[in-house]
Amino acid sequence: MGVVHRQTGRDGTFAWEGVEAEPYQGGGASAGGSRSVLIGPREGAANFAVRYFEIPPDGRTSSDRHAHDHGIVVLRGRARARLGQDIREVGAGDAVYIPPDEPHQFETLGAEPFGFLCVIPSKEWLKTRGGRR
Amino acid sequence: MGVVHRQTGRDGTFAWEGVEAEPYQGGGASAGGSRSVLIGPREGAANFAVRYFEIPPDGRTSSDRHAHDHGIVVLRGRARARLGQDIREVGAGDAVYIPPDEPHQFETLGAEPFGFLCVIPSKEWLKTRGGRR
Repeated sequence: MGVVHRQTGRDGTFAWEGVEAEPYQGGGASAGGSRSVLIGPREGAANFAVRYFEIPPDGRTSSDRHAHDHGIVVLRGRARARLGQDIREVGAGDAVYIPPDEPHQFETLGAEPFGFLCVIPSKEWLKTRGGRR
Repeated sequence: MGVVHRQTGRDGTFAWEGVEAEPYQGGGASAGGSRSVLIGPREGAANFAVRYFEIPPDGRTSSDRHAHDHGIVVLRGRARARLGQDIREVGAGDAVYIPPDEPHQFETLGAEPFGFLCVIPSKEWLKTRGGRR
């Protein structure tokens, strides 16, 4: 059966009915933030997951490099994105693709939290390709 | 290398640098709309794709049923969603999961276009599970 998680955030914030925002540690001393799994195993999704991350002002995601790729769409705020050797500024509405094994990190810019959707493929699929998540 | 498609839409509309909005036919006589592949084979994404669909007022998506599942996050507007036997109203910010083989269709409600992100798994992954896209 289809699952709907209704948006309950107001005034440009994001929260969803039936979805718990878990603490997300991120990277560095300025860590703090949240991770909300909108679509994943709990919804019965076996092929991919869609998560929402929110990183506070002065915060950053952990510096990551792994075999799974990311599809990202920014919902609010701005960040400095490190994508391999590249530094890019990204903001609300931008779409970002991070290929497998590319080092990446996002650092919030400005006074607004940086919020983004992040798609990952299923662990099982990656196993068939010799990767891992 | 990471790919960034910058959002160029203004005043609540959506468009992306380096992404062409293709015509999307949809279902019924009131068809018309667009499909923008934000992350897919062109970006090097082999595990999933992220597309943006926009359905005009009085328009609808095609009535679909297939082996691949969908992860959806609504970016603008409202729609009547048919999810199997269920009819739900969905709007900006809502997240929707449509499992494999569930009949589904979205019909725009109100005067604003209905715009949504739609994630699909890769064809190759579905083949390993005996499905198709």
